[in-house]
Parts: sequence; structure tokens; C-alpha cells
Amino acid sequence: MITSRDNPNVKRIAKLAKRSEARKEGLIYLEGTRLCEEALSSGQKAVEVIVTESRLSWAKEFTPDLEPMVLGDNVFAKISNTVNPQGVAIVIKEPLIGAEIPRRGDNKDIYVVLENTQDPGNLGTIIRTADAFGLTAVIISPTTCDPYNDKVIRATMGSIWHIPVVRKTMAECFEFFSKENVDTVATHLKGNELGSGDLKLPCAYFIGNEGDGLTDETSGRCTKLVKIPMKGRAESLNAAVAASVIGYELSKLI
Amino acid sequence: MITSRDNPNVKRIAKLAKRSEARKEGLIYLEGTRLCEEALSSGQKAVEVIVTESRLSWAKEFTPDLEPMVLGDNVFAKISNTVNPQGVAIVIKEPLIGAEIPRRGDNKDIYVVLENTQDPGNLGTIIRTADAFGLTAVIISPTTCDPYNDKVIRATMGSIWHIPVVRKTMAECFEFFSKENVDTVATHLKGNELGSGDLKLPCAYFIGNEGDGLTDETSGRCTKLVKIPMKGRAESLNAAVAASVIGYELSKLI
Repeated sequence: MITSRDNPNVKRIAKLAKRSEARKEGLIYLEGTRLCEEALSSGQKAVEVIVTESRLSWAKEFTPDLEPMVLGDNVFAKISNTVNPQGVAIVIKEPLIGAEIPRRGDNKDIYVVLENTQDPGNLGTIIRTADAFGLTAVIISPTTCDPYNDKVIRATMGSIWHIPVVRKTMAECFEFFSKENVDTVATHLKGNELGSGDLKLPCAYFIGNEGDGLTDETSGRCTKLVKIPMKGRAESLNAAVAASVIGYELSKLI
Repeated sequence: MITSRDNPNVKRIAKLAKRSEARKEGLIYLEGTRLCEEALSSGQKAVEVIVTESRLSWAKEFTPDLEPMVLGDNVFAKISNTVNPQGVAIVIKEPLIGAEIPRRGDNKDIYVVLENTQDPGNLGTIIRTADAFGLTAVIISPTTCDPYNDKVIRATMGSIWHIPVVRKTMAECFEFFSKENVDTVATHLKGNELGSGDLKLPCAYFIGNEGDGLTDETSGRCTKLVKIPMKGRAESLNAAVAASVIGYELSKLI
């Protein structure tokens, strides 16, 4: 058991517990039983497991192939990002976010493409919802926030490990969708009403930044415009709500 | 201009800037041009206006009937809840949250009833979405978080001043809906699929706590059960997303 905060292994893990540092190495530090178990049960492989002495049995159960790093409670608390540490953490490799955009095979793909989503809660909620409605992938622009940010991972409730999240430029998206004959849909006040039967699969719909919406360039390149009917007073919807309502309506076509 | 932090009026406003204190007096402290202008343009009446000297013209424009309290920049910064104060704040009275549940008149009412929603972002998003989809009111249980919490108000993007938010016990809700012949709908895995034509207006749908869902007592008292079809892997939706998708589908019936 390591009881010194100056131990080089402790220093190394403490560094990885900072998202900005882990990101440089293509790693993700996860802490707490829920987050760790969600990742492991979804097939993510831990490269390190860190526990307090009282949680050794957890390591034996969930990461039987790894030699756990056992820390004294005080040392674990030093690393921990939480107020009440559960004494359980793992390090995993980032899934390949630069991978190609996947296809389903039956041509019933739905993609949600996020241009510059900034709020981690929104990104996490959209990933969770996309997974629930059976979308093929979530595609994020280079400026969209880090999907392995702790807040995003928590908000996805495990879906971050189930549905592909792919980072692409808008140019790469349009090139791919054009080649694959996937409709591209932007939300726009001049669009046809969602649910009017105008949309068909395969289809990619674009959601813009929370404050500014889609850029004119992106909405101008989409082949279809759609409007979410709103019979009340509010002029716009939260980005995650808009993404969810469109995803719900499109999933009826799967 | 008040330049002393020990001025009794400054102390009084600093106290009101803490939500817990303002709540005791049935008041809401709002700061920043967006939040203040949203409330005022929606018909809320300021009972006090607090500005820095450079924002006196703002007070003249937006609260012409009130004598502004003018504070030195340092004194305003002491009161402020924000890192970069804009030098503009108002105090308003809380809208009457104990009011009766309203009816539309054409019997096409949709209500969303929140049983113990805890996340301010979720509550704010639900209020914003309910306003967008033309719901009659948002009804919150006694245990649901304070709708005049700063985070809730921000997330509603002004809708908090447009749509009635009424606090009622579940017993009061069921009594009212029964008397008024309003269908009561709970989300449940055994329910009919949303969008299957099973629902009609007037209708009240119930959304449970983020972690625990609806209590058995509440879902047991509802007259209809509905299930949001999910063709993917995630087992559940974020509370605000579930509320939004049902609100969207029901609003087609208005």
C-alpha cells in the first residue's frame, strides 16, 4: 500500500486525474463505482486500476487481470476529483474518436452532427438520447467540447461507451454524406414542419451552438430544412431538446 | 452614489442577492442585463433597481418609475453573484406560485407535472420547452427545486415569466384533474407507445425524479401509461428530454 503522496506513481496518476493532462496522452481517468463499472461492462479495457485497501475486492472483481495500485485513504483523497472519494478509479484508453463514420448496413442510418456544442451537459444528454433512439453515431465538430470531460461522461449515463462518437470537420461530413447519399438536414425557421413526412432515412441532422445556432455556411450546405413546430411563446429550444425531438421523430422511420 | 459597503441599504441588497434570504421575503434578485430585461419586458415589476453610475441610463430606460440605488463599482461587486458584474440588478416580487392551476378555455390543455425534479438545469429546460410547445402550465411538487434559483431562471431563457409555474401536492393535482376530466399520464415500460394515437387532450403527464423516476403511488394513480419508444441501447432518457418529447408529441393535438 502506498502511503506517501510523493510516490512517483501517485504523482503520475494525480496528473492523469486532470482531464487536460490525460487528454494529451489519449487516456481517460474515471473515478467512482458507477462510472468505472459502466465503462468496464461496456467493454472498455482498464490499463490501470487504483483502489484503497478496503476496495481491493472491487479490483479483483472488475479488473481481475490487472495488478491494482493500492493507496492509503489520504493518498487516494489527494488524487480524487470528488468530495467523498469511493476509493475506486481506473485509467482507460480513449476510444478512437478519429475513426470513420460508421454505416448500419440496412441504410436506415440517423446521424446527429454537432457544430460547436459548448455545454458538457448538453453534449452528454445528446449522446445519451442518440443511444436511446438508435442513432448510428454522434458526430462532433473540432470545436465541440471534449466528450471525455467528466461532466459529459456522467450525463451520458454510460451511453458514451455504446454509441460511436466521431470527430469530423463539417467539410468531411458533407463529403461523406454526399458520397453515401445521406440527406443532410438543418433546423431553420423556413423549413418544413418536423413530422410532416418530409424526411427520410438515411439522414444526418445538424445542431448548432447553444447561443448562435448553426453557421450560415453549414445550414446553407444542407439539402433539407426542418422546423420544430412550436405553438407557444418561447422562440427556441435548448440544443439538447431540439436534438432529442428530431431524433425521436426520425427514429420512427427505423 | 453609495461608496461604503457598510451602508444599510447595501447590506440589505447583499442579503437579498442570496437566494435563500430573498426566498424568505418572497422576492427575487436578478442581475445582468439579459435576466433583468427578460423579466421586465415580460411584465414583471421591479420593486428596486440597483446600478453602477455608468449604468444610470439603463435604469432610466428600463425602470423609469423607480429611484435607482446607485452604487460605486466596488460596492456593486461586493453584492454581485457574478465574476464580471454588469452593474445592473433588480429586485422583483415572486410570481404567485400558490395560484390555482389555470385552464385554457378550449379544453386543449397540456400540463407537465414534475414530481421531485432536483436538477435546476432540468427544471429550467422543462419550463422553456413547455412554453415553446404551448403547454398550459408547469406544475411542481413541494419537493421540486426552487424555480427562482438563478440556474433555473437562466435555463428558462425568459420562459419562467411566460408560462405559469404552480406548486401543488400530487394529491391536489389528482383531485383537480379528476374534477376537470383531465387525463393523467405516467411514463411506464408497460405503457402504450407514445405517438400511437392513445393520448388525447386535455392531458397532464407526470415526470419523476432524475434518479428514481415516478413514485409507485403517483404512477399508480395515473389513468394512462405511456412509453417513449427507444430503439437503441440506453435504458432511459434524461428527465428534461423525456418531458420534451412527450410535450412535443402532445402539442400536435392542440
